[in-house]
Amino acid sequence: MDKINDMYGVISHWDTIQPKIALKGDGTPLSLVKLQAPLPKPTGAIMCIGKNYADHVKEVDTWKVASGIAAPDIPKHPIVFTKAPQAVIGNKDPIIYPSAISSQVDYEAELAVIIGKEGRGITKDSAMSHVFGYTILNDVTARDLQKQHQQWFLGKSCDTFCPMGPCIVPASCINGQDLQIQCWVNGELRQNGRTSQMIFSIPELIETISAGTTLKIGDVIATGTPAGVGSGFNPPKHLSPGDIIRISIEGIGILENHVK
Amino acid sequence: MDKINDMYGVISHWDTIQPKIALKGDGTPLSLVKLQAPLPKPTGAIMCIGKNYADHVKEVDTWKVASGIAAPDIPKHPIVFTKAPQAVIGNKDPIIYPSAISSQVDYEAELAVIIGKEGRGITKDSAMSHVFGYTILNDVTARDLQKQHQQWFLGKSCDTFCPMGPCIVPASCINGQDLQIQCWVNGELRQNGRTSQMIFSIPELIETISAGTTLKIGDVIATGTPAGVGSGFNPPKHLSPGDIIRISIEGIGILENHVK
Repeated sequence: MDKINDMYGVISHWDTIQPKIALKGDGTPLSLVKLQAPLPKPTGAIMCIGKNYADHVKEVDTWKVASGIAAPDIPKHPIVFTKAPQAVIGNKDPIIYPSAISSQVDYEAELAVIIGKEGRGITKDSAMSHVFGYTILNDVTARDLQKQHQQWFLGKSCDTFCPMGPCIVPASCINGQDLQIQCWVNGELRQNGRTSQMIFSIPELIETISAGTTLKIGDVIATGTPAGVGSGFNPPKHLSPGDIIRISIEGIGILENHVK
Repeated sequence: MDKINDMYGVISHWDTIQPKIALKGDGTPLSLVKLQAPLPKPTGAIMCIGKNYADHVKEVDTWKVASGIAAPDIPKHPIVFTKAPQAVIGNKDPIIYPSAISSQVDYEAELAVIIGKEGRGITKDSAMSHVFGYTILNDVTARDLQKQHQQWFLGKSCDTFCPMGPCIVPASCINGQDLQIQCWVNGELRQNGRTSQMIFSIPELIETISAGTTLKIGDVIATGTPAGVGSGFNPPKHLSPGDIIRISIEGIGILENHVK
């Protein structure tokens, strides 16, 4: 076995590693450690799916109409964009408000799929065997930059705009296709959905992406956000320095970050 | 000095390495070696700029009007998207036609900037000091997927859709801001421009991207394509298996790939 010194090694050799995992002694309470993001320096693409929950499409349409941009319908094909790998931060790390370039920073609670087995031309039926596990991803977005630059990469990729964590839960432990996903800002419940409400399911996303692009071990697919983002409110409830965003996904845990 | 075993190490330690470079013996003729892409497995983002040459915007507009999509104007802000790192291939490697999912594969000859010094909030005036060098990038694109998925990532990221090379030329050796860029398909000259015709110059692109996102060593910025892509012709001149695409940029060399 190659020397394993990061999460890519753990994922690659999981079948060998898992049976050997054992807690030695009493362990260390979580409160005494600072967790890094599960993939702190992604070497693969961080792919994200736009408009993958119908109620979110509706709220975004409203905002687009108000902004004078034509309202799109429910997408017929998955909308896939990426976030920059350098934007990744872990649980409890601060989201730095890029006040010089944006005044419309928003949150998006998402279930992220971590690929565990390389593949191309993966069918829906075999897609789930390529999923190593799941984590929570906050697809933090500068709405003004997202609009201004047409393609979404820059508005999605400011430093610290990709909180991930608190951990990866192996796919064998939970059913990623039906989990409650919730997001609170300063204790106010803003998003409350289930991953079963996705327009394009996890197997469909894997089939579509891998049709042309080989999915690699450790690639991340953030599967879209349910309704309740800040831009969906009238007036909008964008983030401000001091805000605390707490995202919970059933069976994974809580990803909490504050805005600085 | 850390052990240097890839191009990221070479770029990071270039000031130390460069004075020590010396040819031992007669060298090996280029014809006897197969060059990999200069960054065969990019660990950072491959960022690309859309519609950065005015004549190309015009030809794309024509195609968009014909397709029933509203014609956009000259962009007021850079359009930035990414290509998947796994799409990278080198000089002379084949571009595999993804015939199961696309029938509109196109070429885009581009000057690619390789970042040599990390930075955030870089001003136009100091931007060029962050450029390590230049290479040629063919932003191969499945036009049908590009349209179908709205965001461009998937249509730009099929395996083998990112030919790069043949080499990186250090920024000290050429003026990236004024180089002739040409592209031939099967010997027919299709694109013929100068990098001085960019709508957003290299320093402006670096200033805009780094305003929110830290640029890392080895990050790639493909600066957009001049007029003459296949979609710009009426009828379109998309690629077919067997085609040979030959891109030349003054002072860098030739990137040649065939479609398989």
